[in-house]
Amino acid sequence: MNKTIFHTNFLLQNEMARRLYHGHASDLPIIDYHNHLPPTEIATDKRFANLTEIWLKEDHYKWRAMRALGVNEELITGDATDEEKFMAWASCLPKTLRNPLFHWSHLELKRVFDVDQYLNERTAHEIYKHCNQLLQTPNYSTTGLLKKFDVEHVGTTDDPCDNLEHHQAIAASGTTIKVAPSFRPDKALYIADKQAFIVYLHKLEAASGITISSFTSLLEALQKRVDFFNKNGCRISDHGLAQMPTTIGMTAELEAEFVTFLRNDKQFSNPAAFAGELLLQLCRMYHEKGWVQQFHLGPLRNTNCRLLARLRSDAGVDSIGDFPQAYKLAQFLDALDRDDQLAKTILYNINPADNEIFATMCGNFNDGKIRGKMQFGSGWWFLDQLDGMEQQLNALSNMGLLSTFIGMTTDSRSFLSFPRHEYFRRLLCNILGQDVERGLLPNDENWLGGMVADISYHNAKAYFNS
Amino acid sequence: MNKTIFHTNFLLQNEMARRLYHGHASDLPIIDYHNHLPPTEIATDKRFANLTEIWLKEDHYKWRAMRALGVNEELITGDATDEEKFMAWASCLPKTLRNPLFHWSHLELKRVFDVDQYLNERTAHEIYKHCNQLLQTPNYSTTGLLKKFDVEHVGTTDDPCDNLEHHQAIAASGTTIKVAPSFRPDKALYIADKQAFIVYLHKLEAASGITISSFTSLLEALQKRVDFFNKNGCRISDHGLAQMPTTIGMTAELEAEFVTFLRNDKQFSNPAAFAGELLLQLCRMYHEKGWVQQFHLGPLRNTNCRLLARLRSDAGVDSIGDFPQAYKLAQFLDALDRDDQLAKTILYNINPADNEIFATMCGNFNDGKIRGKMQFGSGWWFLDQLDGMEQQLNALSNMGLLSTFIGMTTDSRSFLSFPRHEYFRRLLCNILGQDVERGLLPNDENWLGGMVADISYHNAKAYFNS
Amino acid sequence: MNKTIFHTNFLLQNEMARRLYHGHASDLPIIDYHNHLPPTEIATDKRFANLTEIWLKEDHYKWRAMRALGVNEELITGDATDEEKFMAWASCLPKTLRNPLFHWSHLELKRVFDVDQYLNERTAHEIYKHCNQLLQTPNYSTTGLLKKFDVEHVGTTDDPCDNLEHHQAIAASGTTIKVAPSFRPDKALYIADKQAFIVYLHKLEAASGITISSFTSLLEALQKRVDFFNKNGCRISDHGLAQMPTTIGMTAELEAEFVTFLRNDKQFSNPAAFAGELLLQLCRMYHEKGWVQQFHLGPLRNTNCRLLARLRSDAGVDSIGDFPQAYKLAQFLDALDRDDQLAKTILYNINPADNEIFATMCGNFNDGKIRGKMQFGSGWWFLDQLDGMEQQLNALSNMGLLSTFIGMTTDSRSFLSFPRHEYFRRLLCNILGQDVERGLLPNDENWLGGMVADISYHNAKAYFNS
Repeated sequence: MNKTIFHTNFLLQNEMARRLYHGHASDLPIIDYHNHLPPTEIATDKRFANLTEIWLKEDHYKWRAMRALGVNEELITGDATDEEKFMAWASCLPKTLRNPLFHWSHLELKRVFDVDQYLNERTAHEIYKHCNQLLQTPNYSTTGLLKKFDVEHVGTTDDPCDNLEHHQAIAASGTTIKVAPSFRPDKALYIADKQAFIVYLHKLEAASGITISSFTSLLEALQKRVDFFNKNGCRISDHGLAQMPTTIGMTAELEAEFVTFLRNDKQFSNPAAFAGELLLQLCRMYHEKGWVQQFHLGPLRNTNCRLLARLRSDAGVDSIGDFPQAYKLAQFLDALDRDDQLAKTILYNINPADNEIFATMCGNFNDGKIRGKMQFGSGWWFLDQLDGMEQQLNALSNMGLLSTFIGMTTDSRSFLSFPRHEYFRRLLCNILGQDVERGLLPNDENWLGGMVADISYHNAKAYFNS
Repeated sequence: MNKTIFHTNFLLQNEMARRLYHGHASDLPIIDYHNHLPPTEIATDKRFANLTEIWLKEDHYKWRAMRALGVNEELITGDATDEEKFMAWASCLPKTLRNPLFHWSHLELKRVFDVDQYLNERTAHEIYKHCNQLLQTPNYSTTGLLKKFDVEHVGTTDDPCDNLEHHQAIAASGTTIKVAPSFRPDKALYIADKQAFIVYLHKLEAASGITISSFTSLLEALQKRVDFFNKNGCRISDHGLAQMPTTIGMTAELEAEFVTFLRNDKQFSNPAAFAGELLLQLCRMYHEKGWVQQFHLGPLRNTNCRLLARLRSDAGVDSIGDFPQAYKLAQFLDALDRDDQLAKTILYNINPADNEIFATMCGNFNDGKIRGKMQFGSGWWFLDQLDGMEQQLNALSNMGLLSTFIGMTTDSRSFLSFPRHEYFRRLLCNILGQDVERGLLPNDENWLGGMVADISYHNAKAYFNS
Repeated sequence: MNKTIFHTNFLLQNEMARRLYHGHASDLPIIDYHNHLPPTEIATDKRFANLTEIWLKEDHYKWRAMRALGVNEELITGDATDEEKFMAWASCLPKTLRNPLFHWSHLELKRVFDVDQYLNERTAHEIYKHCNQLLQTPNYSTTGLLKKFDVEHVGTTDDPCDNLEHHQAIAASGTTIKVAPSFRPDKALYIADKQAFIVYLHKLEAASGITISSFTSLLEALQKRVDFFNKNGCRISDHGLAQMPTTIGMTAELEAEFVTFLRNDKQFSNPAAFAGELLLQLCRMYHEKGWVQQFHLGPLRNTNCRLLARLRSDAGVDSIGDFPQAYKLAQFLDALDRDDQLAKTILYNINPADNEIFATMCGNFNDGKIRGKMQFGSGWWFLDQLDGMEQQLNALSNMGLLSTFIGMTTDSRSFLSFPRHEYFRRLLCNILGQDVERGLLPNDENWLGGMVADISYHNAKAYFNS
């Protein structure tokens, strides 16, 4: 008997949903094309000291919940022991009912550690001990966990200056799991913080072997890194932005200013023009290589100075922004499409009020050559939960074609997050099953099941030539 | 036995919904007060060569879906034969599950052509042949189709320069179907494209007999056309805008600039002031005639240069914008209401995140004289689907009065779209039936049925004095 | 047998919902921490002449509905008799199906007056007579009504210049009902209407005994009033704004300009900087006192000049705005948090498209000391209805912690509004019950029931130290 809600038919509220999930989705491998797993931990097949290390250390979702419950920062990101931190979290989890943390956390305990109890202050010690023991066994190393969840393809997120040694080591190890880097050049785009920007250019010079003395040589350096990444199996880029930059471009004056900017201590007069032009040029490089490009748009980041001073970035003080998105996005995509330089593209929004904007924007730039070329990306960050994913699927269905969707990716920093693919597949099957019950879709398991399998696996496989 | 989902009780999930639809809605005539049907095709009682001509030729919804599936433009808007295009579409339709195209397309096949099968590659030839045969029969001419769906009133969309000869011919034919023009002066408002604007003014001079040498004479010319449209049965205007223009008005300087602008090759310095003032003056004319005025707000149009260069406008490359709406809308409506010049008004939004803004804005300008004077328009364009319509009905219900709603209009270019009224009536009845089941509404068929009949027909009849 | 839908299990659609509501929520007292009840009417234990006076006189929701139905303003806010106005409303109510007025109005009739019929033209006379008779009895005075609904704590809304004599009288009366003022300094912030602003400063000088000749002395005067309010039991402030003002602050130049502004007839050059700085300083005062601060953000007010000229403000011509919220809100909260001056805060939005922005913003500023310090406020104004409340609860659940929520407040001007707490508790229980049915939450009455009781009562009790 199940003690928790995570039984065989969790989320599957009707017969068709059950047939679709168990018959067409549950056995498929996982393609997790975008996440933040550290390649070094895969290359070294790391084992984790305890549940706190693998589960709480980097998880700003949990931090936010603990702060909301009045837990002292000492027990969250401070100097308390790992066991104290775990106990603090255990006392919080029962208070997270209806928050995605409640499902995510318990589903991870169940699917990874076979814990079929709710975590709370009474069960905490037993669960901590149980999981820590398992973590010492080979099946719970990083690659052990990847195999446990039948992960076929992992897409990490990497800086252009990265030497990709861990990816090389993984490839050389002969593992069947494909671990591919993603090219994420955010730091090269952000000229407004001059000090950090100049430091970054020095790193880029070292990595590329190109002296950067002009906009042109900056592009050359980045092209070198794109070439290098491509040689090391990279087939995808990623960008995190509040909104797309302008396409007004770099004038001759701005290019001249950039040359002197590299040597003086003044700010660059038009950071948006710089970022826009650089990003356009990068996107042309991606297109030339046949890569996929991703844009994660809309967060309002780093809102809380006090916690940032303590924790640097990713402190759990980011939230949803309300920047205008549509016009700049259209301008940018059109600037590339206009001379057939638009790569396969995935657009992710963080504000659910923008779902329909993003879903319809995709439809403007499909070129009739690549099936599902323009993708409205899966519910991301705050939207990676039941309601958020359903709303994304509904907007995508209404404004685009669900059947071409490449589906779920975790975007996670944790090796425990893979059950989210199961969660996504279950809710997808449940939506379709409900539609059949409501008489909105044909009662035809094969027709629907084919689509379920495509979205769960085959579409991503084809999209990434994986 | 039904082979498709479009049976008697499609969308009607409970007993009250069934009683409301079959008892109070299904038999009422259709008032399709706003669409884009070509009056010439009604006047000439056109028959269509084949299913491709009547179904695919102008349908940018289908084009977008086909492009997303990787179909070559040749087979969409290119030089392929009609049959090839149909076959391409038939192979796409099974991949549109959950997109409104799946429901719209199959409902049209069933209700218009009695096709009770799903269209796919296997059924395509038979269906094409069957429908093409029917299209040769008198019941499938344009007026045949209008009669088949008991369409009582058609509101077309017409340029102020149009001579309305087709409307006159239809009226003269003695048909019982009222085919009324709508006055849509978008081209007169868009001064930013000077070349097109000047060409348009020449057309307007020809149509009105007024030489346009100043802002005043432009208004005179438009007044002439309003008078002419009114004489030819027009009782409604329409405007397509990203957002409402400013009400700052035309200063003496701007009026003087306009005079020289007509003769020189410079751009007008304040297009927004021009459009705002012209639109305010037009709205005063509408009010004086007792017309209804419509505003369709919010799209981001013509985003894709490549396809536009190929297809001109309506290429299926428009999407949902995120322009601020509330403040300008309030300013504009108040500028008219302030001296009691605000005509009956229908506001349509394209971004569903604006539903509540539009629904509450209407409530600010009801004047206590005309029941339902300010209308929050039915789900439009991308929102003309099950979720979009339900959300519009919910926002309208929560923020305004559902009972005064004038209901559905197709806004369609196709003579096959009338089953959407059935679709709307069914989902309306289903929402009410669900509310009864949930105990949110009285279990009183007559009370609810009266409202259903009003929304399906009687409210529009009264609103348009139809 | 019930004649209306308001039976024992209204809104409670499943067994768990019923057990949660009847076992854990229905008997708890009411803390209505924010409303607009007139303290004078409590102090004098006012009785109402008739149902029109207590029910229609101040209710701009009803006015809007009547205007939409074409009722003449005479019968809404004009010179018609109370009985004529009631009859007009009675004829409108049956046309409000699905609008919150339908539930609110009938629930008030049933719970306050035991009327178990729908109000319409046929029942109007009998209901009017019945209610008017009850209104003459002691249980239907203002304090009688507060006791009838077990209201433990009432938070009124008061101007800083108010002498709080009624609050003092109520406290002196020895009643067990806590009636606490709220400090709402909107008029001190709004410098753009200079004439009204100067008049207000004179009132503030009189109330505080401070001559206001500079920004500093303005702050001193407000500090005096904060002290005075605090002494009279105030523990909460409130602010109504379109969006948060800027934090750029008052420069020495602006401070100098303010001194001369007080004496000349020029407009202040930077109203936003003034409002921002003044509000920041006020918020520091609140923090020092340990108060809660509320921000009601987003309406577009006073859109209709004609009705405003007739009725002044609160004419029922306000609607939902689409002002950008996220960035300014983050800047403002961070400016206070940065040196640990951020008081407990409740953020209310009026545009439901901003729900997720507000819900996530709260999570950025919880400080790990106070449980539920940052509150995403209950559905407000247009959002205070079934869908709006559910959406707020869902956004709060997904982006924050439902378990810490301080729950419902009426924000009402009417002594008849308290059944809305029942409505809120029912819908909360129903949501949880549905989640149990869907298998999303543990089937554990005590676990869920504890959370229900916390949200219905105990969280607010603790948050306000009530």
